[in-house]
Amino acid sequence: MIANTPKPPYYSVIFTSLRTERDNDYSAMADRMAELAKTQDGFLGFESAREGLGITVSYWKDIESIKKWKDNDEHTKARGLGREIWYKSFKVWIAKIETDYNFEKE
Amino acid sequence: MIANTPKPPYYSVIFTSLRTERDNDYSAMADRMAELAKTQDGFLGFESAREGLGITVSYWKDIESIKKWKDNDEHTKARGLGREIWYKSFKVWIAKIETDYNFEKE
Repeated sequence: MIANTPKPPYYSVIFTSLRTERDNDYSAMADRMAELAKTQDGFLGFESAREGLGITVSYWKDIESIKKWKDNDEHTKARGLGREIWYKSFKVWIAKIETDYNFEKE
Repeated sequence: MIANTPKPPYYSVIFTSLRTERDNDYSAMADRMAELAKTQDGFLGFESAREGLGITVSYWKDIESIKKWKDNDEHTKARGLGREIWYKSFKVWIAKIETDYNFEKE
């Protein structure tokens, strides 16, 4: 569940959101977008959690793969519905991963 | 709750974790670290959610302020307890925020 990303550098998209009260198949859309992202060129990993505030981090090879994912037709349609129906507010940060480290209990 | 960060560039620390079954005042420590981080030089924002997987993103003016926060005595002690008691595994990514945008429903 913790993204198994390669050695940096690469890019991440941090997406933080607050939902409206409206459901309209939100979780089906979110699951579908996670599945679709995994099939895109340059996709490196995906993590998501919601506890009131939702945080999704996706990892990508480069800015070009992020742009192509943004232009994906199904993703563009879902983002339109997100603004219209599902999200009260959100913020997106695009960042270049410079270093990483991890810990596994023995 | 969505971090109100300034115009890029600046830095983020993405911390993703899986917990052990042990409690030992985990939530008191997490709350204290969030409060303490806010008082540090260069701190710009903080977001956290756990849904099985925990994701915390903190935002910082520069790499120097991240290093100083890492060297903070109380934070260093909490990280030691994290490895010993609270976390089964975690991963940390340090990233330079290049662009951001946000959405607010009218």
